[in-house]
Amino acid sequence: MTEKKRTTIILFSGDYDKAMAAYIIANGAAAYDHEVTIFHTFWGLNALRKEEEVKVNKGFIEKMFAKMMPRGADKMGISKMNFAGFGPKMIKHVMAKHNAMTLPQLIEMAQEQDVKLVACTMTMDLLGLQQEELLEGIEYAGVAAYLADAEEGHVNLFI
Amino acid sequence: MTEKKRTTIILFSGDYDKAMAAYIIANGAAAYDHEVTIFHTFWGLNALRKEEEVKVNKGFIEKMFAKMMPRGADKMGISKMNFAGFGPKMIKHVMAKHNAMTLPQLIEMAQEQDVKLVACTMTMDLLGLQQEELLEGIEYAGVAAYLADAEEGHVNLFI
Amino acid sequence: MTEKKRTTIILFSGDYDKAMAAYIIANGAAAYDHEVTIFHTFWGLNALRKEEEVKVNKGFIEKMFAKMMPRGADKMGISKMNFAGFGPKMIKHVMAKHNAMTLPQLIEMAQEQDVKLVACTMTMDLLGLQQEELLEGIEYAGVAAYLADAEEGHVNLFI
Repeated sequence: MTEKKRTTIILFSGDYDKAMAAYIIANGAAAYDHEVTIFHTFWGLNALRKEEEVKVNKGFIEKMFAKMMPRGADKMGISKMNFAGFGPKMIKHVMAKHNAMTLPQLIEMAQEQDVKLVACTMTMDLLGLQQEELLEGIEYAGVAAYLADAEEGHVNLFI
Repeated sequence: MTEKKRTTIILFSGDYDKAMAAYIIANGAAAYDHEVTIFHTFWGLNALRKEEEVKVNKGFIEKMFAKMMPRGADKMGISKMNFAGFGPKMIKHVMAKHNAMTLPQLIEMAQEQDVKLVACTMTMDLLGLQQEELLEGIEYAGVAAYLADAEEGHVNLFI
Repeated sequence: MTEKKRTTIILFSGDYDKAMAAYIIANGAAAYDHEVTIFHTFWGLNALRKEEEVKVNKGFIEKMFAKMMPRGADKMGISKMNFAGFGPKMIKHVMAKHNAMTLPQLIEMAQEQDVKLVACTMTMDLLGLQQEELLEGIEYAGVAAYLADAEEGHVNLFI
């Protein structure tokens, strides 16, 4: 029995295009039978937010972060050419034209392929995000769990 | 016979300074006898565009992308301090002063050192870029080819 | 005797939040007994600048860079939501509220844990930074030294 290859991705970025790249690599690796983990930290956590507003108790600053940050993958901006939101519209237009998967679809596919989606508990605390606000089927862990996966990893990326 | 070390870099960014870092690492690794691949995806594809305009048939959105994105390595902006284009001028000025290689020179050196330069076909489709618009000597591939290289890689980076 | 695991991080970014992520991973890896190197290049060098002004001889461009770039970790901006400096204040406010370590504290901890902090001499030259302006206990090296560490690395990241 040969050992399974392992891919780990830290998704730090909250940009739509960078998150797409992360999920395309993750889905590709899962299709090639890698064990895959995406560890979402800082702005990358926004990809895991539910689209609907979730009522939770928050302090003032946490409420402001919650307002300012995009609620869910579909709302994220792109890293370049974000001309007043024109960039994401163009990207989504060409994606639809080429039948490319959207970010929410890529996330769903990753979950179907058993990609381990982890939310960084330390940065959830900092940004005031609570488990009720994130998608179902997510794991919660810290840097130690990431390192345990990554030190056995063949492909480790920070995105 | 010992196995060659292998370095793979995903160049996602379209920033001049980040592309410089990618190519400096790639050239360094090639000099240390690594097999090196740079996989250009999303905005990183712009580093491979020819400087001259190439006549190809494109739809409206693809034409807009082509206009908005920098044509070739020399035209790319920098990630920080891009004060109305003042940043790149300063960087290029100090580079000339220190006889540092420019990005186009670094790309040429990489090709001479047999660094494998790959353009991501999926994002070429999305951005409407065609093979005629990119430098000679480029390979065309998708995420599967990247993963095949990276899973044997010793140094894998996402830039 | 088993070989020690090794983590290498290239810190290219000059963003407070990205540098925090780099140092949190580095400190975590050191706590798990990895040999850890952070190789600071381009804007990441700013994390190593002393807070006080250091008198050194510089040309005009080098002086401008020195003025425009943040002097030390505490002065760095964040990568997202940097609304007129409001973002860093919010981040620092919630960090204080959660007793999270600040970036200068994380750097100090890394030095106590013998994380090897390296400044890239090539980009120091480009940006006109001199050894007197950087923290004590830093090593000075180039891409060759980075590659020598990274090719033996288990977790290699570009941040």
